[in-house]
Amino acid sequence: MPKLPNVLTLTTDFGCRDHYVGVMKGVVASLAPGVQVFDITHDVPSFDIAEGAFAITQAWRFYPEGTVHLVVVDPGVGSSRAPIAAEAEGHFFVAPDNGVLSHVLESVGAFSIRRVDIRHGLEAISRTFHGRDLFAPVAARLAAGMSFEDVGTSVAEPVRLSPVGVANGHGSVLHVDRFGNIVTSFRPDDLDDGTGLAVGGTVVSLRADSYAGAPQGELFLISGSSGYVEISINQRSASASLQVRAGASVTRTRLRA
Amino acid sequence: MPKLPNVLTLTTDFGCRDHYVGVMKGVVASLAPGVQVFDITHDVPSFDIAEGAFAITQAWRFYPEGTVHLVVVDPGVGSSRAPIAAEAEGHFFVAPDNGVLSHVLESVGAFSIRRVDIRHGLEAISRTFHGRDLFAPVAARLAAGMSFEDVGTSVAEPVRLSPVGVANGHGSVLHVDRFGNIVTSFRPDDLDDGTGLAVGGTVVSLRADSYAGAPQGELFLISGSSGYVEISINQRSASASLQVRAGASVTRTRLRA
Amino acid sequence: MPKLPNVLTLTTDFGCRDHYVGVMKGVVASLAPGVQVFDITHDVPSFDIAEGAFAITQAWRFYPEGTVHLVVVDPGVGSSRAPIAAEAEGHFFVAPDNGVLSHVLESVGAFSIRRVDIRHGLEAISRTFHGRDLFAPVAARLAAGMSFEDVGTSVAEPVRLSPVGVANGHGSVLHVDRFGNIVTSFRPDDLDDGTGLAVGGTVVSLRADSYAGAPQGELFLISGSSGYVEISINQRSASASLQVRAGASVTRTRLRA
Repeated sequence: MPKLPNVLTLTTDFGCRDHYVGVMKGVVASLAPGVQVFDITHDVPSFDIAEGAFAITQAWRFYPEGTVHLVVVDPGVGSSRAPIAAEAEGHFFVAPDNGVLSHVLESVGAFSIRRVDIRHGLEAISRTFHGRDLFAPVAARLAAGMSFEDVGTSVAEPVRLSPVGVANGHGSVLHVDRFGNIVTSFRPDDLDDGTGLAVGGTVVSLRADSYAGAPQGELFLISGSSGYVEISINQRSASASLQVRAGASVTRTRLRA
Repeated sequence: MPKLPNVLTLTTDFGCRDHYVGVMKGVVASLAPGVQVFDITHDVPSFDIAEGAFAITQAWRFYPEGTVHLVVVDPGVGSSRAPIAAEAEGHFFVAPDNGVLSHVLESVGAFSIRRVDIRHGLEAISRTFHGRDLFAPVAARLAAGMSFEDVGTSVAEPVRLSPVGVANGHGSVLHVDRFGNIVTSFRPDDLDDGTGLAVGGTVVSLRADSYAGAPQGELFLISGSSGYVEISINQRSASASLQVRAGASVTRTRLRA
Repeated sequence: MPKLPNVLTLTTDFGCRDHYVGVMKGVVASLAPGVQVFDITHDVPSFDIAEGAFAITQAWRFYPEGTVHLVVVDPGVGSSRAPIAAEAEGHFFVAPDNGVLSHVLESVGAFSIRRVDIRHGLEAISRTFHGRDLFAPVAARLAAGMSFEDVGTSVAEPVRLSPVGVANGHGSVLHVDRFGNIVTSFRPDDLDDGTGLAVGGTVVSLRADSYAGAPQGELFLISGSSGYVEISINQRSASASLQVRAGASVTRTRLRA
C-alpha cells in the first residue's frame, strides 16, 4: 500500500460568505494535522444534488490516489438519510447518501460503500450542520489514516440519481460555467456531421475546435474539457444568449442537407 | 508546552476579487514558511465589525490549540486605533482594537492583550493596508514561534462592542447566512413553549428539529449550529421572505393560549 | 542555491463557482506533492488580460524567492499563442504569452523566458483548458524542482501590453477594488499641490493620508497600497459615486489658484 498523500478536498453548497467552510477546515486541521485541504468549489447551487454530483465527478481523478473527497450538498440534513463513505480506485469519498456520489460511482469499475458510524463525529452532533459535526470528522480521520473498514457497516447500494446521458436523442444541460459555456450531456460521439443540438428553441450546428478559433458572435458546438459537448460563444456567454440553465432539455436534431 | 500546530486563519472584509488576500498570504508564506493558512471568510460585509466578530467567534474553537487567528475588518486603518494581539485558551488573535474580538473575549475565561509593536511590521508600513504591512507580519511571526510576550506592551482592556444577547425580551439578528437562515441573538433557553419571535412584523412560533423535518413553505424556529435560535424555511430563504438583515430587531412574544 | 520553499500561487479568471480551479489544484497536488498552493485571485474579469497583469504584479513580490506563479487569463486558449514560463528575481511565472506578465517583467531588472514544451503537459491536452492540461503541470513540475532550462526553448521577447503609466498628463483607471477605491495609473510623484485628477467629468483635488482621516462623503486622492494614487471616499464606494470602471481615462488638471 502506498503512503497516503494526505490530501482532502471539499465540495459543498455552503458558499464562502459564512464561516461554515472555515469551521469545517478547523475540524480537519484539528483531527488531521498537516493534511492539505483543497477546495473544489463551495458554490454548488443551494441544495442542488445534481450540480454537486457534476462538480466532484469532474474533479476527483486529477487528485492523487489516497485523496479523501468530502462532498456536502445535503438538503436532508437532520433527516434519516444516511451519511456514507465510498472507496473507489484508491480514492475515498464522504457524503450524504442522496445521490451526490452517483456520477463518480458510475464512472468507476468497482467501489465499496460504508455507512458512517456516529461515533466518528464530534461529541455533540447538531441536527443542522453535519458537514461540521459528522462529515468533516470522518473525512479527517480517513485522511489521517483510519482504515476504510472502520468507517462503519457495509452498505450494498447507495442512493442513485438518474444516469446522465442521452436517450433517444434527448439529453440535458449538466452545468453552465462562469463564462456562460453550456455543458450538455451529449458526448462528442453522440453527434455526427449531419446533426446539431436544439436548446431553448435554437438549433446550434456550427462546430469549432477552440474558443478562439470560432467566428465572433456565433453559437458553436465544441468538445469541452469536461468530456461533453458544450455550446459556446467566443468571449461571450452562450447561456445568457440562449437563456438556458442547468437542467434544460437538449435535443439532437438532424440538419437539412 | 505542546508543539505549535502552525496553523493560521484569516477573517477579513477584503473579498476575494482583489489581490489583497493573496498578498497577505504571501507575507505569511515569506515570514512563516510551511505554516498552513485557512480562510474563515473574506466576505464579511465591508467595514462591518459586528459581522466580523460573529464570524471569528463561531469558528476559532474548531481549530487546534496554538492556531493564530488573523482578523482584519478595519474601517479605522491609518487612524490612531491600535493593532493588538490576544491570547486566550491557547489560541492567538491579531486584529485592530475596534471590538472585532469582543465576542471571542466574552466567551473565554481569561485572556491577555498586547499592543503590536510596529517593529514587527514590514519595512514600510502604508496608511491604507495594515492587513499586509502590520497584521499579517505579526500573525506570521506568532505562527512561526515568536512568544506572545514579544508582541508588544500589555493592554489592560480592549475596545468592546455591546454584548450580544437578549435584554428584556429584545434581541437582534446577528447574521443571515447564504441559505437565508436568520441567526438571532436568542439562545434556545431564552424561549419556552409559550413564546415566539417577532421580526419584521411577523411572529414565528412553529418549532422544528431539522430543516428537512419542517413543513414546506412555513417559517420555523430551530436551534441552529451556531448555538442560537434561527428562523428558517426548508430549502428557501427566510431572510428574503421576511426582508430581514443583520442588525434587525427580534422580540420575544407571548403566544395566545 | 537556496532550498525552494515549494510555494505555488494561482491567478486566473476562472472564478470559484466551477470545478476548474479545484481541478488545477488536483494536478498540482498530484505532480508536486506537499507544495503549498495559494490563491491570488480567481476573479479577474473574464478574458481581461490587463486586470490579470495588474493582480499578479501587485502580489508576487510578497511571496518568498523560488515561488512559482501560475497566471491563466487566456482568451486565446487553443489558438497559436504560446505557453511560456519566465524567471525573474528568483521567482518563476507560467502563463500564456499574451501580455499578462507584462507589468511583472517591466518591474524587474532582468528576466528570461522559455516556451513551454508540450511534453510537460498531461497525456491528452484539450483545446479548451490549458490551465489544467499544460499550465498547471509545468508550474507543478517547476515547484517540484524541475530546472527552468528544462521548460523549453528560449524566447527572446514575450508579447507586451502597452506600459501602464501617465503620458502628457493622461492616465487611466487600472483597477477598481471591492471597496470602490479607484486605482489610477498616476504615481504620487506625478502630482503636486497645484494639480488634481479629472475622471468621469469630476475633478478630485482633496488629499488624505488615510481613509479614516478623510471628511465624510467627500472624494479624495490618497497614496494607495498598490503604489498608485487612488480616488476614494471614506467607507463608501468612489467608483459607484463616479460611475467609473477599469480602463476609464484619468487626466491631470491644474487647479485654479
